[in-house]
Amino acid sequence: MKANLNPAKGMRDIIPQEKEIRDYVEGVIINTYKQNGFELIETPMVENIENLIESKGGENLKLIYRILKRGDKLDFSKETLTEEDLADLGLRYDLTVPLSRFYCNNKAKLPSVFKALQVGNVFRAERAQKGRYRSFKQCDIDIIGDSTNKAELELIATTAKALTSLGVTDFMVRFNDRRVLKSVILNCGFAEEEFDNVCIIVDKLDKIGLPGVEKELKAKEYSEVSITKLIEALENINKEKTNCLKNYGVPEEVVKEVEEILELSREYAQNKYDIEYDFTLIRGLGYYTGSIFEIAYKDLGYSIAGGGRYDEMVGNFIGERIPATGFSIGFERLVNQLMEERFKVPNQEKLVLLFETSDNYVDVMRKADELRNKGYSVSTYEKAKKLGKQLNQFTEYGFNKFAVYDKEEMEIKELS
Amino acid sequence: MKANLNPAKGMRDIIPQEKEIRDYVEGVIINTYKQNGFELIETPMVENIENLIESKGGENLKLIYRILKRGDKLDFSKETLTEEDLADLGLRYDLTVPLSRFYCNNKAKLPSVFKALQVGNVFRAERAQKGRYRSFKQCDIDIIGDSTNKAELELIATTAKALTSLGVTDFMVRFNDRRVLKSVILNCGFAEEEFDNVCIIVDKLDKIGLPGVEKELKAKEYSEVSITKLIEALENINKEKTNCLKNYGVPEEVVKEVEEILELSREYAQNKYDIEYDFTLIRGLGYYTGSIFEIAYKDLGYSIAGGGRYDEMVGNFIGERIPATGFSIGFERLVNQLMEERFKVPNQEKLVLLFETSDNYVDVMRKADELRNKGYSVSTYEKAKKLGKQLNQFTEYGFNKFAVYDKEEMEIKELS
Repeated sequence: MKANLNPAKGMRDIIPQEKEIRDYVEGVIINTYKQNGFELIETPMVENIENLIESKGGENLKLIYRILKRGDKLDFSKETLTEEDLADLGLRYDLTVPLSRFYCNNKAKLPSVFKALQVGNVFRAERAQKGRYRSFKQCDIDIIGDSTNKAELELIATTAKALTSLGVTDFMVRFNDRRVLKSVILNCGFAEEEFDNVCIIVDKLDKIGLPGVEKELKAKEYSEVSITKLIEALENINKEKTNCLKNYGVPEEVVKEVEEILELSREYAQNKYDIEYDFTLIRGLGYYTGSIFEIAYKDLGYSIAGGGRYDEMVGNFIGERIPATGFSIGFERLVNQLMEERFKVPNQEKLVLLFETSDNYVDVMRKADELRNKGYSVSTYEKAKKLGKQLNQFTEYGFNKFAVYDKEEMEIKELS
Repeated sequence: MKANLNPAKGMRDIIPQEKEIRDYVEGVIINTYKQNGFELIETPMVENIENLIESKGGENLKLIYRILKRGDKLDFSKETLTEEDLADLGLRYDLTVPLSRFYCNNKAKLPSVFKALQVGNVFRAERAQKGRYRSFKQCDIDIIGDSTNKAELELIATTAKALTSLGVTDFMVRFNDRRVLKSVILNCGFAEEEFDNVCIIVDKLDKIGLPGVEKELKAKEYSEVSITKLIEALENINKEKTNCLKNYGVPEEVVKEVEEILELSREYAQNKYDIEYDFTLIRGLGYYTGSIFEIAYKDLGYSIAGGGRYDEMVGNFIGERIPATGFSIGFERLVNQLMEERFKVPNQEKLVLLFETSDNYVDVMRKADELRNKGYSVSTYEKAKKLGKQLNQFTEYGFNKFAVYDKEEMEIKELS
């Protein structure tokens, strides 16, 4: 058998040294979230295909992995076959669709305001490129059933705590509201159906600057008047933040809501991190209905967490309006960044206990247990002829202590 | 949208109360394994389909979830379509196939004897029935590259430790060897190609007894002489254990190997648990080449862990023989059993902090943080009009403490 040893395209094998860092980071995030009252749930990686394709996933819907029907259900006899005829299940592309179904399905067993924590892999058949995976981990917290701004305050504060617990402090929260975006853009004279595309261009402001935005808008042949108005609005809002929003048709109560969240979040944060109003924060997903937010870290060109309010999605499953707000940490981005910063898992005591073939192995096992009782993680290995080379290898594998088996006292030495 | 709220068939939503127990059990198992020198790795849930269908998975190969090709690769134009034309990926049905590929793919970065730990979900399109899931968790430890019985000793000792750490003590290790089974059965006069089916019948001995086994063998029309010899062998081996194996054509060195593992395992276990030789232990998977073992718990009709030596599978990927031995805990069975025994996660301090709408929410958040710093997991909730009813609900949700927000001192009370 001449086999392909690589993981499937876009998927990854994770070796122990990397797994240790990932698990540590995941553990800190989960513990912080749990300590802050979020409850861990689990949803299946596989969902009925209708729930996925009928969701508001935007571009992600094109990236769904569909699962072939099985047994008699798989019928090749039809003249023109489509994907719909062949697949009845799919891999989840995010954690929000399964969460929404989960909440509606288990409502009776959950608190009326449910603070959910979910960590798991999602799958997207993305074009393969460096640093972009087809299976990747997300860490989401969501508050379902709370229409007040306590949800936003809680989510922002808790995500900030999770990052801080990992030593990530040099971050900034960017905040905006979908309703503000819509009011301003329509107020400038753009049509409802132009909104999404205008947003896509405004999103690029920090990369291409105002002249770039103007150029791209003109290339789309939008009305000159609207473009001029919008550029002026962008300039003003950038300077005056929420103070000038009312001049662009944003309803007073929306401005008040935005300002209150900003004010209270800042009051809670006590200058440990910044919360900025940023009109150019768009967030791609079509299901947001109110506030949207992201966490920017250092000068990375992308956010390490993002979320917002989506009051129309959860209840969609049962024909009700159920308020919901979520914040998701981009686990892969965060871990990649920490690994680039040479992040070390603290308090690791990994010891290799070397023995000879002639040693009584049950005694070796007992000695290893004694060391484990002292707090070491111990792996037993046969001593190689070239001890120096062997010790170097174990250092590379992530061990930091070693001992040579002895019936009596053993000396524990550092590896370096 | 009239949606199906249920998880996909055979899949599960896991609510917080159950998730907490599962995560605790998983955590104890992982910590025990890591402390004992096993290294956590991660392999993708999705594998290239050839790696799955060309593996020695026996009956499991019929249960593979295949993933539809995407984009241009999905070609409906062929006249007679097959599953092979339509699917290029599949969901893993166990952790051993991905581990084997992983080891061959990452050999250069791993110790020559690699002690692997893997925990993750696997997928099988089983006929749906109570307690049997189509997505379920496995916890595997494997030692790759060790042809000595140290691998068996280590795996049995460590799995026993993991169970003991969970308070599961009333268990027994059953031990056998594929080579013994083969020698005895062929020695009785059965043909090589009858071996698998004879094993399937012998496997039922504890359920149907010797007369039942005899009847089923006769129904298959095997030679009368062979059947009589085998029944006699089963009786003798049940009485005399390994002592009489040499009378049934089992090579002396195989008997010696089996006896040595039993002796050393017992010496290490020091009567904390039993290790029994059991000729009727078969284990279904075709890839085992030597020792096989299971853990029986109380009078459950099934094992809660199983494994064995499979020296021909890992190397198959690269055309070499690479010794390997594994032991897998049936996580779902173990958790179900613990839940039936009303297992409680120790040291949980889950507190609900109740506030009024009129309270300043940033102050409430600060007070919650103070409690968190004292070690409580705290969730804030608006106080309901019917406090008694609300407290009962939170008890059901798994909380065990509550406090009512107060600017000054707060009293922490028990929920019950």
